[in-house]
Amino acid sequence: MDKIYNFCAGPAMLPEAVMKQAQAEFCNWQGLGVSVMEVSHRGKEYIAMAAEAEQDLRDLLNIPDNYKVLFCQGGGRGQFAAAPLNLLGDKKSISFITTGQWSKGAVAEGEKHAQASVFDALSSNEQGQISVKPSAEWQLDKDAAYVHYCPNETIEGIAIDDIPDVGDMVLVGDFSSTILSQPIDVSKFGLIYAGAQKNIGPSGLAIAIVRDDLLDNAHPLTPNIFNYSLLAGSDSMFNTPPTYSWYLAGLVFKWLKQQGGLTAMAEKNAAKAELLYSYIDSSDFYQNNVAPENRSKMNVPFQLANSELDAAFLAESAAAGLVTLKGHRIVGGMRASIYNAMPIEGVQALVDFMADFAQRNR
Amino acid sequence: MDKIYNFCAGPAMLPEAVMKQAQAEFCNWQGLGVSVMEVSHRGKEYIAMAAEAEQDLRDLLNIPDNYKVLFCQGGGRGQFAAAPLNLLGDKKSISFITTGQWSKGAVAEGEKHAQASVFDALSSNEQGQISVKPSAEWQLDKDAAYVHYCPNETIEGIAIDDIPDVGDMVLVGDFSSTILSQPIDVSKFGLIYAGAQKNIGPSGLAIAIVRDDLLDNAHPLTPNIFNYSLLAGSDSMFNTPPTYSWYLAGLVFKWLKQQGGLTAMAEKNAAKAELLYSYIDSSDFYQNNVAPENRSKMNVPFQLANSELDAAFLAESAAAGLVTLKGHRIVGGMRASIYNAMPIEGVQALVDFMADFAQRNR
Repeated sequence: MDKIYNFCAGPAMLPEAVMKQAQAEFCNWQGLGVSVMEVSHRGKEYIAMAAEAEQDLRDLLNIPDNYKVLFCQGGGRGQFAAAPLNLLGDKKSISFITTGQWSKGAVAEGEKHAQASVFDALSSNEQGQISVKPSAEWQLDKDAAYVHYCPNETIEGIAIDDIPDVGDMVLVGDFSSTILSQPIDVSKFGLIYAGAQKNIGPSGLAIAIVRDDLLDNAHPLTPNIFNYSLLAGSDSMFNTPPTYSWYLAGLVFKWLKQQGGLTAMAEKNAAKAELLYSYIDSSDFYQNNVAPENRSKMNVPFQLANSELDAAFLAESAAAGLVTLKGHRIVGGMRASIYNAMPIEGVQALVDFMADFAQRNR
Repeated sequence: MDKIYNFCAGPAMLPEAVMKQAQAEFCNWQGLGVSVMEVSHRGKEYIAMAAEAEQDLRDLLNIPDNYKVLFCQGGGRGQFAAAPLNLLGDKKSISFITTGQWSKGAVAEGEKHAQASVFDALSSNEQGQISVKPSAEWQLDKDAAYVHYCPNETIEGIAIDDIPDVGDMVLVGDFSSTILSQPIDVSKFGLIYAGAQKNIGPSGLAIAIVRDDLLDNAHPLTPNIFNYSLLAGSDSMFNTPPTYSWYLAGLVFKWLKQQGGLTAMAEKNAAKAELLYSYIDSSDFYQNNVAPENRSKMNVPFQLANSELDAAFLAESAAAGLVTLKGHRIVGGMRASIYNAMPIEGVQALVDFMADFAQRNR
């Protein structure tokens, strides 16, 4: 086994070039003789790095000037609480669109703070595949503070690639598993947030991109570390940020620019997903039951037609260097997470293994 | 300049041996061919490492079985909110003892959730030095849910080494800057918490040690990631934890055991502090105005008698490899943070430089 390809859904693999750079400068950052994790977040070197990371993210996502970029702690689940605490204001309800486990998780936290108006957008098409109702059919609570949805459900592998049309309502998206995989028109959103551990960097960091007219409205009981206004007013350094995670995220942003930015990444991700889904669809040994237009390009769940072979598939794929392919316990089967850092060579190696395994087990 | 000694108050230096091990296995942890930050927190390797880290911490602090150890996000300031959210219950107030900026910071967050009964424990002794009133003189709010204090104020360099006697009230300590520097009788506390970035590991992690009868009492609006009961019931994996920080903390715990545990660390830390304070006291060029019994062994603020020399002191010390000695802006002057990871050789190098600088600038 020469090469490991890691299909973990998160914490996920990071770009190999980023990891090598981080390892090389681990104990001596910028010639300071100490690690970046051993310097003050108030020092000029760290502040310059942190600001550059934010600017690189702004460049990548073409974030308009009237949006603040916040580097937060607490992951995506922290933002499940931070979003209602900051955005509810004097409204009484939140309009939740559910398409899987993560969008439902946001409801579970949000309904502590507000009335949850929940619309289940899952459907099935004529072929019996799981599909998502188009946003024109969503029943929205027009009095809600905002509409919340999750454009990529990592567990079920369900995606909404087009930005939903919610009229003049404030749109909030949990982009934890899809941010930076393709361009986003940020101007359509009131808030975008994302836990880092799929496409940004290590776990322990979350990024929030919030339109500035939505600030200054936090609930009085909002913990300070979740208060968007406090974070915005202190360049995300109201408290000590997760400095090493921020640094690694900055390296990832530089790497993404070197790859050609998000348009280039979108092409690569589309090619990787096409390679895997088209093989699955061509085979009667494997299957994926999501409608093509709602298939996730980040997380590809698939089932073996004969689930008695699951254990053998997992053992042999791991032995071949294709690791962490077990599906989430809720849906079973397999799942290949193919975020930005996964090269197409890894997907090809997986497809080759799948074909060989099928051949040997017919 | 051969050797850098980093006196940063936090994020602070980590043990050199820990950093070298982490660098060596950065891209290939446990022979898995991937980084520890790229594996699932649900995988057996990570779970085993995480459990071992907890056990090592339990061993070091001799934590009784009726205490839960939680690995949290949000740092010490996150715990400023988590403590009242989890512990207030049906009580109306919190008894805060203030001795400096950090204990006051806890009040600022706590008074969002409860009536804050604040007792300023600072005083001055006959020599005009800053001292802390003994706990027998503290005016406590007997109806409060708990008494909160901070045994080490990093900014002012003020410490309370003996555990306060608060009768049968629940005692909560913010040990962010002193945990693991000496043994603690955990059984005297309802809750001990600490941000990681001084004596535990990198920023982005906080540890809470909570007596189990205090669980299951969280305010309904407590964000799930701050809910001690949820964290305790999920081995701190209700949400994706900051996996790399947890790993590094585990390496630090192993290193502390190799050093002989906390009794040995307490002796080393006392020797380091004695070396520095005794030099300061022997000099009329430098001064520290904290009463000896309340001097911090972790953070040693000192002033030059002639503050016009501050800039030269900082520039020349940095050039000599003694970095990050500038005091906090609130108190000015200098500050040497000498946590567990600082070897006595670093303190000796600082004292030697201070003596030389004084000699040259008289």
